[in-house]
Amino acid sequence: MSKQPPKDPGKPFRPFSRPGKPFKGRGGRVLRDPAPDYATGTVLLYGWHTVSEALRNGGRRIRTLLATENAAKRLDEEGIAHSAEIVPVREIDKRLSATPDALHQGLFAEADALDAPDIEDMPADGVLLLLDQITDPHNVGAIVRSAAAFGVKAIVTTNRHSPEATGVLAKSASGGLEHVPFVTVQNLSRAMNQLKDRGFQIIGLDSEGEADLDAVKLRAPVALVLGAEGKGLRQLTRENCDALARIDMPGAIKSLNVSNATALALYAVTTRLGLRR
Amino acid sequence: MSKQPPKDPGKPFRPFSRPGKPFKGRGGRVLRDPAPDYATGTVLLYGWHTVSEALRNGGRRIRTLLATENAAKRLDEEGIAHSAEIVPVREIDKRLSATPDALHQGLFAEADALDAPDIEDMPADGVLLLLDQITDPHNVGAIVRSAAAFGVKAIVTTNRHSPEATGVLAKSASGGLEHVPFVTVQNLSRAMNQLKDRGFQIIGLDSEGEADLDAVKLRAPVALVLGAEGKGLRQLTRENCDALARIDMPGAIKSLNVSNATALALYAVTTRLGLRR
Repeated sequence: MSKQPPKDPGKPFRPFSRPGKPFKGRGGRVLRDPAPDYATGTVLLYGWHTVSEALRNGGRRIRTLLATENAAKRLDEEGIAHSAEIVPVREIDKRLSATPDALHQGLFAEADALDAPDIEDMPADGVLLLLDQITDPHNVGAIVRSAAAFGVKAIVTTNRHSPEATGVLAKSASGGLEHVPFVTVQNLSRAMNQLKDRGFQIIGLDSEGEADLDAVKLRAPVALVLGAEGKGLRQLTRENCDALARIDMPGAIKSLNVSNATALALYAVTTRLGLRR
Repeated sequence: MSKQPPKDPGKPFRPFSRPGKPFKGRGGRVLRDPAPDYATGTVLLYGWHTVSEALRNGGRRIRTLLATENAAKRLDEEGIAHSAEIVPVREIDKRLSATPDALHQGLFAEADALDAPDIEDMPADGVLLLLDQITDPHNVGAIVRSAAAFGVKAIVTTNRHSPEATGVLAKSASGGLEHVPFVTVQNLSRAMNQLKDRGFQIIGLDSEGEADLDAVKLRAPVALVLGAEGKGLRQLTRENCDALARIDMPGAIKSLNVSNATALALYAVTTRLGLRR
């Protein structure tokens, strides 16, 4: 019943690292220590969808897996290979004491962060999401989930002012992190220019945009850029977009929750590009 | 600068009560006491959008309003009438000690719950949302916000297994509660039948639905029914729908966060019914 790697940290598992190239951590930072400390890039995963999708992902190295008896039984029933340590529920509560209302559903894991491709290695294909300093991990998690549902090729965030792909974000993503590379960059504007050079049409969503998204002429591949609620897109981010689009709303409230706005934009864009079927 | 009612509880303000009809509380429950206790139906509101929209709503009776000096200044600058008691931020933190991470932005209010029309008094017009035991207040709040953005006429929930229109829900709704009546009913199936009698087309969203929502023939007025994540619609709820529709997703994850699914359904339905402009 076990396909899981041994728990000894040993040499970190690096699905994307290539020989002759220094290993780059999230955000493209070159890690100083070629054999990084176990704690570097370790993420917390909890909840049924989050942990079960991680277990199904061959590229995700699980370091610790705790499960209640019921949760382990459910993994077995669904044919998901695991070597969980069976623990009472309070043991998992204790591990998650920093987030007391965490709905862990009897599953808790410590795992290596997934490595992600560099911007210049990503195929010029489909739809990307760029997040401009969206800080709330619930929102970013919900965005990752929708991105996985709409077949988004990658999510690009800045390595500052962005939550990491762990804990609440991973829970809200409901397994989506296993399917959409989460790329962090130092400088979003530079990434936008790299993507433009590679043929991406860059569309920023902005309440002051010059046209409704439905009226913007699309050409794949597309990168959609989303800003934080309230603050919106930063000036330089706006300037680097090929088009700024708004989503017109008929009601009294004119702005949506950012994850809802993202879902609408993905629905509209993937439908119009014929990517929804 | 003050249009606010006096702080003395006195006789509760009941914008919807009619002479000769016993007052009904949320969910149509007839309140036993004709002059209910002050605490009955009191809600907590915090955060800029939530409180400022409540202050702009003539039908919302504010009992207590606390503001930091900065927040009060911002209310003044935006021409919003108030008679806030100016307090240090820690005083608001203290009032919200049950939700320690509450982003109150220096505004806190206690107010009367808004009364809502009965099902049989709602105009047979536009789009309604029916929530079948969606328990998470963040999700329900985000749904209220989207509903207000799409001009939804009312949200109908069950009075059991549903969060109340206060606190986290009100914060996530970001002022949307002031614009969309929040109707609670004892029995959702009965409400569905009442709506059917009044000409509503009832469409349940269900991952096992017989057709993609885009392929369902629509006829206004429409009531969209949403179930909780994981559990989905209850059997009786499903049986009472005119149609069960799914939203097809091209990606690896097949289910969306319920507030995101609601936003998509509202976008698709209001666009097709010509209600978005």
